[in-house]
Amino acid sequence: MKLLVIGGSDAGISAALRARELDPEAEVALVVADAYPNYSICGLPFYLSGEVEDYRDLAHRSAEDIEAEGVRLLTNHTARSVNPGSKTVEVTDRSGAMKELSYDRLVIGTGAAPARPDIAGLDAPGVYFLHSMDDCFRLRRRLTEGDVRSAVIVGGGYIGLEMADALTLRGIQVTIAGRAATMLPTVEASFGGRIEDELRGRGVEVFGGTSIEAVEVGDLHDGNRGGLTVTGSSGFRRSADLVLVAAGVDPVTGLAEDCGAETGIRGAIRVNRRMETGAPDVYAAGDCVETWHRLRGRYDYLPLGTTAHKQGRVAGENAAGGDREFAGSLGTQVVKVFELVAARTGLLEGEAREEGFDPMTVEIEGWDHKQYYPGARRLGVRVTGDRESGRLLGAQILGSWRSEISKRVDVFAAALYHGMLVESLSDLDLSYTPPVSSPWDPVQAAAQEWEKELRRTSTRSGGHPAESARV
Amino acid sequence: MKLLVIGGSDAGISAALRARELDPEAEVALVVADAYPNYSICGLPFYLSGEVEDYRDLAHRSAEDIEAEGVRLLTNHTARSVNPGSKTVEVTDRSGAMKELSYDRLVIGTGAAPARPDIAGLDAPGVYFLHSMDDCFRLRRRLTEGDVRSAVIVGGGYIGLEMADALTLRGIQVTIAGRAATMLPTVEASFGGRIEDELRGRGVEVFGGTSIEAVEVGDLHDGNRGGLTVTGSSGFRRSADLVLVAAGVDPVTGLAEDCGAETGIRGAIRVNRRMETGAPDVYAAGDCVETWHRLRGRYDYLPLGTTAHKQGRVAGENAAGGDREFAGSLGTQVVKVFELVAARTGLLEGEAREEGFDPMTVEIEGWDHKQYYPGARRLGVRVTGDRESGRLLGAQILGSWRSEISKRVDVFAAALYHGMLVESLSDLDLSYTPPVSSPWDPVQAAAQEWEKELRRTSTRSGGHPAESARV
Repeated sequence: MKLLVIGGSDAGISAALRARELDPEAEVALVVADAYPNYSICGLPFYLSGEVEDYRDLAHRSAEDIEAEGVRLLTNHTARSVNPGSKTVEVTDRSGAMKELSYDRLVIGTGAAPARPDIAGLDAPGVYFLHSMDDCFRLRRRLTEGDVRSAVIVGGGYIGLEMADALTLRGIQVTIAGRAATMLPTVEASFGGRIEDELRGRGVEVFGGTSIEAVEVGDLHDGNRGGLTVTGSSGFRRSADLVLVAAGVDPVTGLAEDCGAETGIRGAIRVNRRMETGAPDVYAAGDCVETWHRLRGRYDYLPLGTTAHKQGRVAGENAAGGDREFAGSLGTQVVKVFELVAARTGLLEGEAREEGFDPMTVEIEGWDHKQYYPGARRLGVRVTGDRESGRLLGAQILGSWRSEISKRVDVFAAALYHGMLVESLSDLDLSYTPPVSSPWDPVQAAAQEWEKELRRTSTRSGGHPAESARV
Repeated sequence: MKLLVIGGSDAGISAALRARELDPEAEVALVVADAYPNYSICGLPFYLSGEVEDYRDLAHRSAEDIEAEGVRLLTNHTARSVNPGSKTVEVTDRSGAMKELSYDRLVIGTGAAPARPDIAGLDAPGVYFLHSMDDCFRLRRRLTEGDVRSAVIVGGGYIGLEMADALTLRGIQVTIAGRAATMLPTVEASFGGRIEDELRGRGVEVFGGTSIEAVEVGDLHDGNRGGLTVTGSSGFRRSADLVLVAAGVDPVTGLAEDCGAETGIRGAIRVNRRMETGAPDVYAAGDCVETWHRLRGRYDYLPLGTTAHKQGRVAGENAAGGDREFAGSLGTQVVKVFELVAARTGLLEGEAREEGFDPMTVEIEGWDHKQYYPGARRLGVRVTGDRESGRLLGAQILGSWRSEISKRVDVFAAALYHGMLVESLSDLDLSYTPPVSSPWDPVQAAAQEWEKELRRTSTRSGGHPAESARV
């Protein structure tokens, strides 16, 4: 079986390795457009901040490791077109020379490219996007030249926030502007507000509810330095030496369309849960595809590295003759911004309402461990559940990055995976010793508060099914 | 409804509060033998180490908080006997005066007392057990007098280890002796060995496989100081100023037996999963009862604070007219020893074999977060699964106490609760950002290694059901 994989990031590498793992006879080749297969794109902000000194440390695996697993790597090769009839892919190498590669099965992991929002002047020098390692090198070179004193970041999502942290660490005055009312709209506004406090506490200027409209060359104050002026809604106007656009991504789907694969939400490739595109023997995975959402029970566009790994693994398994379905995303995410970590899984209250649930949310303040043991820190936990069924729908945690927040959200994620009731979270036998938790972990304390709130509000409205079923 | 609760620790308080929460009309009284209701017994080592200065900080809740919830507290009252016919309990106060309390329903949460192993000389001055707050105060007084230069701890379980840490922090030369071959026999020996390395690295003398046989007054070296000599198997012989016995606990069941309740494993009170004793209207919970083990599918004796909280809550709910079953323990535990944390959930390989499973275990070394991000630390993960069904049976993690180990074990615990297959762990949508994890969390990396090992060993033996079902 000849498996050809296009794309050397999370989805492609996972597919290639999984296929080889399950079928040691498979001939697996992987086409990578640059020289950097299996790089941790999520690590770019930490390379740009200077926390990671050597870019090679960003590789999840070296090219040698990948080849040692029996995957033939074609680095610096760009796939140009697919001919599904002849089952061939045309690729060019760096010299522009064309090669034809044949396949029995094809996995497309072409990922996504930074969205270009409707802003005038994005081609000006000094405006950066982050996509490839080469983009990253260009930006790092500019940062290490030392002439960047101020930057405007366009986009208040997790990459924007990580870059606000990274550039601040470099001593740069950062302004961040996002369209949503609060930063990190993937968590509720109450948490978004606390992230903004953290940013402001570190000297970052924060503008929510702001659409950037134009970037012009020419500094407001000393125009002769070749700086930039950034303007936007509500009279936003800032000078900056550098503009970084981190306004989301768009799926890259040209090759899949060559194959006759359909596209759907946000233009992403339609796949089934086996990661099949519908075109014969063509699989797709990662940031270029629609993603099955386990709670919504439908597809969505959710480009995330963890999801790409999982989908790639499923695609690779099926391409190798297996029969595996992608279990679905819960939209689990975590981001570190300075000392804070914000994590979420499942649906926000508004998202839950969109899906026809009757959501109710509580927010508690807890402690990461028993208060009497030194170093206890507060954390906030939000739990959303369905009033009708009592089912857990989502959770978010915000607090210090030393407070085991990521793995606490993972307990919620495991519960969501199984469709647990909020009340059943108290049945989980979680670990406890005073330096790391409480006898009821904050995860459970929040669930218990949700139950109480349901009881309080249901009694008022004259009894409630989820309630009366219990006591 | 008059609910009487005997015992002011985890189980009793949880039962009382839960009953009041669900039935605000319930008359709930709680009998506490000392003046310290709802104290965190798990916090005693940290008070004895000096890390917690004020013992009052050890209270999960103050007496005022408990009374504010409508629970009538009878502190310094000891329940002497129960008359199930008249539904009354005789209690004495500090003066010895007898009172009779009546109940409609009774919850017994009398806990456990330190086991007294078969060692000569345990009544010698300088030999300590840890049970009540008063025991704790006596020991702390002795420690702060400053004349304790050396101590022998009898017992290599989690309390022994925490006390080895605590006494070392006080500058005391500690020797710890346990009967099992390695310390902390609740984890596998490979992890036990690393805990011993940590102890020895801090100057603690460690003796596994050692039964202590006698404590004699009279120091080996300067007998006139009133020191102790401790002797045991394999020629063990040490001088010490102090001996602490932490050799497990025995359930306290006299009152339950008054009611006609049966006892079973290790002498603990037999209950069903509604926490009913069999005696009419008498519930029991916590360290005094047999505990339903969710994986073993049978009762066991597993005295743990988290379990006591859960069982007490179930007892209180049912006593208030509800209908709730205790979901069962997975034996989840975590202990911090100096900078190390060791956590487990589910069954060890030997325990799994006892239950008729065909267990296989892998151990991996992972990183708590992406290696390129500063501060990454190694951790060890052991996963045990059933070769036949592919089901997850247990997991253990060992590493730095800053590596989110406790909550990682909780992800395994949530998976075990739902009877997940090892391979399905890779389907969990866990959170990732480079400072806190990897795209495949070590939990999942270990599960994937288990799958590989199963494939490797099954191919050799000519195919395997769990395997052939998949690929």
